[in-house]
Amino acid sequence: MTKIKVIQFGLGPIGIEAVKLAAEQSWLEIIGAVDIDPAKVGKTLGDLTGETALRAAHVFPSLDTLFASVGAPAVILHTAGSSAAASFAQMQPALERGISVASTCEELIFPALNTPDLAHHYDELCRRTGARIAGTGVNPGFVMDILPICLTGVSRDVRSIYVERVVNASTRRQPLQAKIGSGQNPDDFRAKFAAGQAGHAGFRQSVALLAHAMGWKLDEIRESCEPVVATSRVVTKFFDVAPGQSLGIHQKCIGLVAGETKIKLDLQMYLDASLPHDAIVVRGRPDLNLVLNGGVAGDDATVAALINIIPRLLAGAPGVRLMTELAVPAWRNPRC
Amino acid sequence: MTKIKVIQFGLGPIGIEAVKLAAEQSWLEIIGAVDIDPAKVGKTLGDLTGETALRAAHVFPSLDTLFASVGAPAVILHTAGSSAAASFAQMQPALERGISVASTCEELIFPALNTPDLAHHYDELCRRTGARIAGTGVNPGFVMDILPICLTGVSRDVRSIYVERVVNASTRRQPLQAKIGSGQNPDDFRAKFAAGQAGHAGFRQSVALLAHAMGWKLDEIRESCEPVVATSRVVTKFFDVAPGQSLGIHQKCIGLVAGETKIKLDLQMYLDASLPHDAIVVRGRPDLNLVLNGGVAGDDATVAALINIIPRLLAGAPGVRLMTELAVPAWRNPRC
Repeated sequence: MTKIKVIQFGLGPIGIEAVKLAAEQSWLEIIGAVDIDPAKVGKTLGDLTGETALRAAHVFPSLDTLFASVGAPAVILHTAGSSAAASFAQMQPALERGISVASTCEELIFPALNTPDLAHHYDELCRRTGARIAGTGVNPGFVMDILPICLTGVSRDVRSIYVERVVNASTRRQPLQAKIGSGQNPDDFRAKFAAGQAGHAGFRQSVALLAHAMGWKLDEIRESCEPVVATSRVVTKFFDVAPGQSLGIHQKCIGLVAGETKIKLDLQMYLDASLPHDAIVVRGRPDLNLVLNGGVAGDDATVAALINIIPRLLAGAPGVRLMTELAVPAWRNPRC
Repeated sequence: MTKIKVIQFGLGPIGIEAVKLAAEQSWLEIIGAVDIDPAKVGKTLGDLTGETALRAAHVFPSLDTLFASVGAPAVILHTAGSSAAASFAQMQPALERGISVASTCEELIFPALNTPDLAHHYDELCRRTGARIAGTGVNPGFVMDILPICLTGVSRDVRSIYVERVVNASTRRQPLQAKIGSGQNPDDFRAKFAAGQAGHAGFRQSVALLAHAMGWKLDEIRESCEPVVATSRVVTKFFDVAPGQSLGIHQKCIGLVAGETKIKLDLQMYLDASLPHDAIVVRGRPDLNLVLNGGVAGDDATVAALINIIPRLLAGAPGVRLMTELAVPAWRNPRC
């Protein structure tokens, strides 16, 4: 079997994990990586991951320098931001060459929501060159959109979809605990959320993808986020939170049609959260009531989704692709 | 929007339900049906379903007579048996004309298991003519195969898959209660299962599809079925079961690699079963533990799966298709 050549774009914590998981796959060959950090450029992925098998894969400052040095991969693993506009721009040199992109960019879960013109432009570019680009992940990308959509495959009728996710952030890495405002003054967090600088990214995209898949034309997507405030001291490996400070977030997003709530997503992600789980309720015929006990662990599963999408992405038609247009998600098996 | 022309092949209880659900879809046009029952041939689907809108759609004795009278549909809804060989033969006149087929035939969930040569032959025929044929349903087709496969889309590693399904047959239609041996002598049922004349169809196909999707080469698929015996009298709308008689089945099917159980499916379907549910456990990284409280109702969901697959089937490549090769299941929205 010919191995699929991949490169990693973005060497933050998720990018490094993606490289490590890709290195375990017999059907993938990692030929290099791109990062803008001068401290990483010129090193090898062996240096950065500790995987001796990756000592021949170098880090380049740009796609063009990488292509010039090691040639073109079949797929780029992109883990360098939440903005669809920025991600499209970063990937333009690849898409122009017909190279496909699997990305953890939250807005790419449904890029037509915030950037319809760009989504259309890059879709046409991809169809011309044969490239594909798609966003994937756990949330957005699975628990609150693709999994409930998959569930409706056995629905005669769907009236509304409700998903809740409770994540115990105490078990997660430091950047996530920081991102949800752990230890911050609740009012500071509220101000940051209002300014678009805090909260969970990609919520609105999950709502938009659900509505798109169900054929619902939403009049409005309404999002809110409140800090979860500590009533007693909570200590994690990374934070020591006093009563009155934030433990994390309770974020909600609803999609409305003619004043009726068709979609409601509810995310609680805070330190010391009890009973972590994901739950989906589809009201319709039949009613469906799903619980994932313990929930889907975030970071492990995010890089898994990124690697697992590769065969399905390459089997899909060229264009800006939604996960709903690709084959059923499945563990990495390249034969689908 | 141009409506997709469909016909119904097989007018048993599931076929009639499929026609009724298809008639509710604004994106489908039912142009006729085929059944071998002389009592149905010549009638209209309006007569057989009570739907006045279907009084122009007639029942023909064969595909050829239907095609000659009303032309070719885009898709045939096939609900006329569990055997892949028989279903392929029934659909040959359609596949030769490039007409696609969505079927509830259990063996078509993974036709290469029992009829690899036929699957290959009809795959080549379909690729030549542009037709697609795929099996779908709830079990097989969703709860014990596609849903667990979808779940592994966020898995870094999968070591084993376990699915259990408990169905309270008291709430189901008479033919199902009869099929699982309700009121029979348990030894009679055991003899029938041993002769291949009883038990739930498609179990081995679900195991084979799971193994295929995970890339596991199974050494053996082992199936067993035991009657569930009444300890006290159980009365349903259709049966009055005395202590010592059968209430239904407890059927198991496992898939082994080098002596290790990689896949285990466990189905309990009997009268008066408590706590009906579907549960999936994926052992791997991360472990995943899913419960569908109440389970997925059988008959409603089976015809839903059949209608819902149409847009995904038509968007797929020609050939004998597995559900894992089609887009993520979703409620009927033809835009995917």
